[in-house]
Amino acid sequence: MTTDPLVVFTPSGKRGRFARGTPVLTAARQLGVDLDSVCGGRGICSKCQITPSYGEFSKHGVTVRDGALSDWNKVEARYDEKRGLKPGRRLGCQAQILNDVVIDVPPESQVHRQVVRKAASARTILMDPATRLYYIEVAEPDMHEPTGDLERVGRALAEQWQIPRITTDLPTLSKLQPILRKGGWTITVALHKTHATDTPRLVAAWPGLHEGGIYGLAIDLGSTTVAAHLTDLDTGAVVASSGIMNPQIRFGEDLMSRVSYVMMNPGGDAEMTRAVREAIDALAVEIAKEAGIDPSLILETVFVCNPVMHHLLLGIDPVELGQAPFALATSDAMNLTAKELDLTSLPPSGGVYVLPCIAGHVGADAAAVALSEQPHTSEDLVLIVDVGTNAEILLGNTSRVLACSSPTGPAFEGAQISSGQRAAPGAIEAIRIDPETKEPRFRIIGSDLWSDEEGFDLVAADSGITGICGSGIIEAVAELRLAGLMDPSGLMGSADQTGTARMIPEGRTHSYVIHDGTADGGPLITVTQGDIRAIQLAKSALYAGARLLMDEMGVEKVDRVVLAGAFGAHISPKHAMVLGMIPDVPLDKVTSAGNAAGTGARIALCNLGARADIEGRVRRITKVETAIEPRFQEHFVAANAIPHKTAPFPELMQIVTLPEVSFNTGGDDGGGRRRRRRA
Amino acid sequence: MTTDPLVVFTPSGKRGRFARGTPVLTAARQLGVDLDSVCGGRGICSKCQITPSYGEFSKHGVTVRDGALSDWNKVEARYDEKRGLKPGRRLGCQAQILNDVVIDVPPESQVHRQVVRKAASARTILMDPATRLYYIEVAEPDMHEPTGDLERVGRALAEQWQIPRITTDLPTLSKLQPILRKGGWTITVALHKTHATDTPRLVAAWPGLHEGGIYGLAIDLGSTTVAAHLTDLDTGAVVASSGIMNPQIRFGEDLMSRVSYVMMNPGGDAEMTRAVREAIDALAVEIAKEAGIDPSLILETVFVCNPVMHHLLLGIDPVELGQAPFALATSDAMNLTAKELDLTSLPPSGGVYVLPCIAGHVGADAAAVALSEQPHTSEDLVLIVDVGTNAEILLGNTSRVLACSSPTGPAFEGAQISSGQRAAPGAIEAIRIDPETKEPRFRIIGSDLWSDEEGFDLVAADSGITGICGSGIIEAVAELRLAGLMDPSGLMGSADQTGTARMIPEGRTHSYVIHDGTADGGPLITVTQGDIRAIQLAKSALYAGARLLMDEMGVEKVDRVVLAGAFGAHISPKHAMVLGMIPDVPLDKVTSAGNAAGTGARIALCNLGARADIEGRVRRITKVETAIEPRFQEHFVAANAIPHKTAPFPELMQIVTLPEVSFNTGGDDGGGRRRRRRA
Repeated sequence: MTTDPLVVFTPSGKRGRFARGTPVLTAARQLGVDLDSVCGGRGICSKCQITPSYGEFSKHGVTVRDGALSDWNKVEARYDEKRGLKPGRRLGCQAQILNDVVIDVPPESQVHRQVVRKAASARTILMDPATRLYYIEVAEPDMHEPTGDLERVGRALAEQWQIPRITTDLPTLSKLQPILRKGGWTITVALHKTHATDTPRLVAAWPGLHEGGIYGLAIDLGSTTVAAHLTDLDTGAVVASSGIMNPQIRFGEDLMSRVSYVMMNPGGDAEMTRAVREAIDALAVEIAKEAGIDPSLILETVFVCNPVMHHLLLGIDPVELGQAPFALATSDAMNLTAKELDLTSLPPSGGVYVLPCIAGHVGADAAAVALSEQPHTSEDLVLIVDVGTNAEILLGNTSRVLACSSPTGPAFEGAQISSGQRAAPGAIEAIRIDPETKEPRFRIIGSDLWSDEEGFDLVAADSGITGICGSGIIEAVAELRLAGLMDPSGLMGSADQTGTARMIPEGRTHSYVIHDGTADGGPLITVTQGDIRAIQLAKSALYAGARLLMDEMGVEKVDRVVLAGAFGAHISPKHAMVLGMIPDVPLDKVTSAGNAAGTGARIALCNLGARADIEGRVRRITKVETAIEPRFQEHFVAANAIPHKTAPFPELMQIVTLPEVSFNTGGDDGGGRRRRRRA
Repeated sequence: MTTDPLVVFTPSGKRGRFARGTPVLTAARQLGVDLDSVCGGRGICSKCQITPSYGEFSKHGVTVRDGALSDWNKVEARYDEKRGLKPGRRLGCQAQILNDVVIDVPPESQVHRQVVRKAASARTILMDPATRLYYIEVAEPDMHEPTGDLERVGRALAEQWQIPRITTDLPTLSKLQPILRKGGWTITVALHKTHATDTPRLVAAWPGLHEGGIYGLAIDLGSTTVAAHLTDLDTGAVVASSGIMNPQIRFGEDLMSRVSYVMMNPGGDAEMTRAVREAIDALAVEIAKEAGIDPSLILETVFVCNPVMHHLLLGIDPVELGQAPFALATSDAMNLTAKELDLTSLPPSGGVYVLPCIAGHVGADAAAVALSEQPHTSEDLVLIVDVGTNAEILLGNTSRVLACSSPTGPAFEGAQISSGQRAAPGAIEAIRIDPETKEPRFRIIGSDLWSDEEGFDLVAADSGITGICGSGIIEAVAELRLAGLMDPSGLMGSADQTGTARMIPEGRTHSYVIHDGTADGGPLITVTQGDIRAIQLAKSALYAGARLLMDEMGVEKVDRVVLAGAFGAHISPKHAMVLGMIPDVPLDKVTSAGNAAGTGARIALCNLGARADIEGRVRRITKVETAIEPRFQEHFVAANAIPHKTAPFPELMQIVTLPEVSFNTGGDDGGGRRRRRRA
C-alpha cells in the first residue's frame, strides 16, 4: 500500500494528501488555497497558473523530484504556443499531482491578491471585488424540455460554479440570446453581488471566454472637482486617473450657495443632478479612452462625496441639508445601477455603490477617509483633516472616533483668491520670502526649480506664470507672516512700514507683489488683503472644527495630524502650522495621506468586505454638528489671528520665530500695535 | 379570584381569555384572527371595525351581556361624527373587553377577505396583495443623533409593524422628505413584497393617513387587443375595465408577421416595444380617469401575454421565438417596476409582475388560464381552449396537465374577414339561417332583439349594422353548413344550386348576403368563400392542437370543454361544435370561462400566494410543441372539413342534422358531389 502524494502550497502553507492524478486546481480548491480560475478548470483562461518547486524543502519536510507533476499536456502546449507561459509555470487545472510536490501560487494567480498602495501610509488593498467573471458552458435549448436561456445560464452557474441563484435586469436580459449563440453556448458572465443579499446579479455577458478584463471607477465627487480612478477589477491596478471641474459650480461655488440656488429656483435640484450626472458620464468616457478600453467594460462605480453632492447625485432635493436639523434623506450606503443614475455610457446593469453618510454635514467622503485612514486602529490620538471646499475632520483612536465638517469655502483650493487658480502647470505652488530682503522666490507646477535658480526662466517661458494654486496661497500667507510683512491680525503693512516696494497700495489696504509679468503680457500676481481675509476665514473654520472635536474628546492636544484631500500632499506642514490651520504638534507628526477620500473609494471598489466594514463603522462614529455649536463660533473668532489669538503653539515656536509686528494704525479691530503697546 | 373574560371571534371561531381592558384588536392579533388595521390601532383608519353580538350563544357556550365591551370612547365618537359608524359597529382598537363577548369580524374588516368572481365558474379570490399600506409615526431628525429620514421610516416600521428591513429606490426616496414634513412625521407607506424575497420595497408614501385607496391593473396583453381591469387592492373589486387595440398590429397582424418584421427591419423590436408600452401607459391613464382616480394610485400591474408579446413588452428581440427550437430569453416570472417598462404615468417604483411562460409557444397567458381554471384540480378530463389570435390549449386532470398553443390567426376575432370587425355596437354577434327559406336573422351587439323582431330597426338605426364580429362569423359559417348552403368541404353553392338569391357570385366563388345596407349608405355584409377558408384554417389549427394533446394523453375523447378567451363567452357551443372547432362532447359539457387569462391576471394581482403557486405549477405542465410535430399537420388536414373529415362527432349528431350536400362541380379537391355519387 502506498501513501498518496503530499502537496504543500506556498505562500499559504496549506498542505494535504491527494490521490495520484488529482489536478493541482482541484487540490487547491479542496484545501481552500486562493487559486484563481475564470473558466472553471477548462484550460482556457490561464488564471490558475502555478509554479512547482523542486528539490529539498526541509521546512516543509518534503523532497520534490522530477516527475512530481504530470508532463505538459496538449492543452498547456497549445496555451503556451498561443499566449506563452512564463518559464516554470504550469496550468493548475491541467498539471496533475503524481508525487510529493511544493507548489507556489504567484500573486497574479490569487483571487484575493494584495494591491500595494503608492501613498506614504501604504497599506495594502485585498482584492475581493463585488463583480467577478465566470466562464460557463450552457445547455442548448430543447423544444421538448422548454426553458428560457436565462434559466439555463442559471443552471450552468449552479452546476459549474455552485452559485445556486442569480437575478438580472432587462437591459442585460435583452442582450443574452445573441451572446449565447455567438459563443456557441459558452459564455463569460459578470456577476455582481452586494454584501446585503446572497443572490448575485448578472450584469454583463460575453461570447466564449472574455479576455478583455473588467474595470471599476472610484469617483471622489467634490464640490469643486470630480476625480476618478479607473481600476482593473482583476489586478486592482489603477489604469487611468482623470478629473474634471464639477459643472455645478455655475449654480454656486460652495455647497450652501447650491442649496440656496434650489431654494430660489424650483427644479434647480433636477438641473444640478442632470449636470453632474452628464459630467460623470463624460468623465467615464474620457477615462476609458485614456486607458484604451471600451466604457462597456466599466462594470462598477463607487462614489464618495459630501452630503449635498450625495443628494444631488441621487436626484434628491438637498434643501433639508441647508437648515437645522440638517436631515439626510438617507444615510445608509446605496447599491444602485448605472441606469438608475442615467450614466448612459456605462453598462446599464453595472453596479453603483455610494458610501454611507455619517451625518447631515459629514458625508460619504468623510466615511471614505475613515475607511482609508482607519483612525479607530490608531493607538495615538490622530486628527485627520480632509481639506477641500468643505473640510471633513476626524479625531480618534482605538477607543473612540469623532467626526465633523467645517465650511472652509473654496479659498484653500485657490478659488475666490485674486490671483488664484486651480493646480495646473504655471501655477505657483510653493513660495519663500526672504525675511531680510522681503524678496520672494517660488516654484511653479511642472518644474522642480525655484524661480531664482538657473533654467527657471526657460520653464516659465513654456507654461507661463499664471497664478497661485491652493498650496501656494497657504505658503504665501504663512511666509508673509514669517517675513514680518503681515501682523498676527492678518493686516499687511505699507511699503513704508515694511521697507519693501513689493507692498503696493490697493485702495485703503496693501497687496504684496509676488510676480509682475505685465511687461510680457502676463498677469500681475499679488496677495491682496482680501486674499488674506479669505484664507483667514477658511483656516479659522478648519481649526475651530478640529478644536471642537478636541473639546468633545476632552483633550488639549493631539498626537499627530494627517492632512488628506486632493492637495493635502502639497501643503507644507510648517506653513500650515504657521497659518494656524491645524493644532500645534511636532512637525514630524504631520503627514499627508494624499487623496484619502479617493483612496477610500478605491478600497470600497476593490473589496466587498470593506463596504460592510465602513457601513458598520460609521454608525459608531460620534457626530459633532459645528453649525449649531456655540463654542464653534468662539473657536472660530479666536482662530482668526495667525497663528492663533490665545493658543501658544509651543511646538511651532521651537522651529520658527514670528516677528512681532503690527500694522494697525488706529481703528477698532482690536488687533495689532495698540494692544502690543498695552502689553 | 375572577376568571379573565372569554372572547369568541366569528366567523373564525377563534377564542381565548384576555385581561379585562384588553382592546379587541389586540386580542384578535394574539389569536391570529384576520382583522385589518392600517393605522396600527390609533383609531384613525377605521379598518378594524367589529360587531359585538349580545345574548345567549349556546354554540359557543357564552352569554354576552350589556357592558361586555367598554363604552364608546372619544375616539370612536369623533370618528362616528366625522365619517359615521354603521349601527352596532365598534372600532376594534378602541373597544376594550370587559366581560365574555362574541365578536363578529365583518368581511370588509378582514385583510384576507374573499372576492366572489362574477363568472359562471365562480371561485373566490382570497385577498393577499403584494402591496399593502402601513400608517406609521416617524421620529423627527435629531442633529445630535443624525440618521437619514429613510432610516427612521425603517425604524418606525420595525417598531410599529415588526417589519425588520425595507428597501426602496431613488424615485420614491426623492419624494420622501417633503411627505414626512407635510404629514407632521406621520405617513402612510405602501410596501411591496414579492414571494421571492423577504424584504419589502417602499414604493409610495403619503402624508398622514392615506385614505384614497390603492389600485392594481390586471392586463391581458393580446396580439390584437389589450384588456385591462383596474382593481381596488383593498377590496379586490374591479372598479373599471377598458381595452384598446394593440398598436403593434401596424407591424403585423399575427405573431409570426411581427417576428418577421423584426427580421426584416433591424430595430423593429425596439419600435414595437415602444409602441406597446406607450399604449399600455395611455390605457392606464384612461382607465384611471374612468374610475375617477389618480394614476399615481396604481401601485401594481400584472401582465399575462403570449411569448412574443412577453418579449416585446420586456424589450427583448423575439426573433428566437420565430424559429425552432423557439427559445425564450427567460421563462420564469418577472418582478419589475413600472419605471423599467417606461410606464411613465404610473408611479415609477410600482411593482410589475409578469406571469411565467410555459414554453416558446405557450405563454404567460396560458399560465394565467391554468391559474384561473385550475385543470390540475379537475377530476374529469378537461380541455380548455383560450381562443384568440393564437389559441392556448390545456388538457388535463388531477393526474397530469398538458399544454400547447396553436396559430389560429386572427379570423376568430373578426380580422381578415371581409365584413369582419371588432366586437362593438353594430357588429353582428349571432345569426340563424332558416334551413327552408335560407333567410337569415341576426342580433347586433348592443341589443337583445333579433333582426326579425319588432323594435330592431330602431336599435339598428342607432348603431348601424356595421359588420360581423368573431362570434358572429363562427355562427354564420356553422349556420351556412346547417342550412345546406355550404358543403362539408367548406364550399358554398351558387344561387342555382342552393335556391336562394342570397348567394351572389364573387369571381368564381359565391358569397352569402347577410344584410344589404347599401340603400341607406351602409355596408353590404356578406360571408365570402375567402372568409370560410380563413375560418377553416383557424378552426383546423385549434382542433389539431387539441387532438395532439389528446394523442399525448392517450385518449380519444375528453369529458368536458371550457371555452376561454375574451370572446369565449359569446361563442355558441353548438355552433363551435358544428364548425368542428372543438372535439365532440355533450353540449352541456361545454362551458365558458370568459376571459380566463384576464381572470388569472386578476388572481395574481390580488394574491401573492397564487404567484408562487402558478410558478411551481408551470414547471410541472407537459409542453407539446405543435410546430414540429408531424401529426399536427395530419390532424390539421383532417380537421379542414366541417365539422371533420373522419371524426364522427356522435354527440353533435344527436342534436343536429347536417345536410348532405356538395357544391364541387368537378375539379380535383376530392370532396363533394363526386364522392357522394360513388358512396
